[in-house]
Amino acid sequence: MSAAPRTKRGEATRAKIIASAQEAFAQYGFHEASIVKITEGAGVAMGTFYLYFPGKLELFREVVFDLNRRLRHAMSRGSAGATNRLDAERGGFRAYFDFLARHPEVYPIIREAWFVAPDALRLHYERIATGYVKALRDASASGEIADVDPEVAAWALMGVGEMLGMRYQAWPDPDRASDAIPDDVFEACMQLVTNALQPVRS
Amino acid sequence: MSAAPRTKRGEATRAKIIASAQEAFAQYGFHEASIVKITEGAGVAMGTFYLYFPGKLELFREVVFDLNRRLRHAMSRGSAGATNRLDAERGGFRAYFDFLARHPEVYPIIREAWFVAPDALRLHYERIATGYVKALRDASASGEIADVDPEVAAWALMGVGEMLGMRYQAWPDPDRASDAIPDDVFEACMQLVTNALQPVRS
Repeated sequence: MSAAPRTKRGEATRAKIIASAQEAFAQYGFHEASIVKITEGAGVAMGTFYLYFPGKLELFREVVFDLNRRLRHAMSRGSAGATNRLDAERGGFRAYFDFLARHPEVYPIIREAWFVAPDALRLHYERIATGYVKALRDASASGEIADVDPEVAAWALMGVGEMLGMRYQAWPDPDRASDAIPDDVFEACMQLVTNALQPVRS
Repeated sequence: MSAAPRTKRGEATRAKIIASAQEAFAQYGFHEASIVKITEGAGVAMGTFYLYFPGKLELFREVVFDLNRRLRHAMSRGSAGATNRLDAERGGFRAYFDFLARHPEVYPIIREAWFVAPDALRLHYERIATGYVKALRDASASGEIADVDPEVAAWALMGVGEMLGMRYQAWPDPDRASDAIPDDVFEACMQLVTNALQPVRS
């Protein structure tokens, strides 16, 4: 548990620590990212750190939850306004890849979480899945998409996004820019997602 | 680099060290899995260890490559004998999930590799992708599957397997057995894969 800051200034200090920690965990890994490095990066004193977080592990968990909240918010905005589920998929995937481009630290942090904070890792995926399963279930029930198992489909599509983001954004080809998903890859991804979900054509 | 053992007995010793390391890395993580724990688990002396491996990092890389070889071998056998690409997908996915059930240590090791040995992690995925891309390219060219981007499709489907394996095998529901993929999940997965790949029905 970390203490909730009571003032705007407190909130800003807490956010600075989380931002610095996110960078440090991604760059050095949990074990090498010392509290000294994190507080120096945030421009706060060591004593200040302990006003907000009992220790490094709790801070790591907060970094995971903070990334998760922002990612889900971005994906919701990306799919808002879509008039059907396949358009919503397109907007959601676009927002997901754009978020990764702005936050490449997602990959190292989420991968290392398996050991550092497995419960936070699992919550990260489950929180994304919850809304996704509901959206796919509704679309499947209304015939907007094929009669798929909404939970299996949600996790499968999360896997598609995670693996393509790793391959084409974290490990770009030498002749590609490193931060964005290439347009042709995005379109090929959406072709697969559309084929997987669209109702049987008669 | 690790020295290649010249005798059968040497090969057996090396294999015992790799097997013990695989278990220790999965259970404790790279940093906590000491060479002492690994050699004790293998029943060999510390000095013997250094005849085969210069250190723990090189051993970790060998563990990744060993798992990778066995996984690819299992998937090849699983899809051998299929008369078309969609059947080969079914056999390959089945073999993949069965391998994970027998080797739950794949997840922690592959996830931690992001920090411990990123080059080995990348090779792990690329070695799986290489044969997969070729198979999908051939099937797409012959009209056996839809006209998909074979590389994007290969990585996307690798993501499907990895995420569903994590969700349903590493994190099973409380009322499910922990080691096997549930049949209904497997069938729902294959429905998505089939829809994603099958040629447009006319």
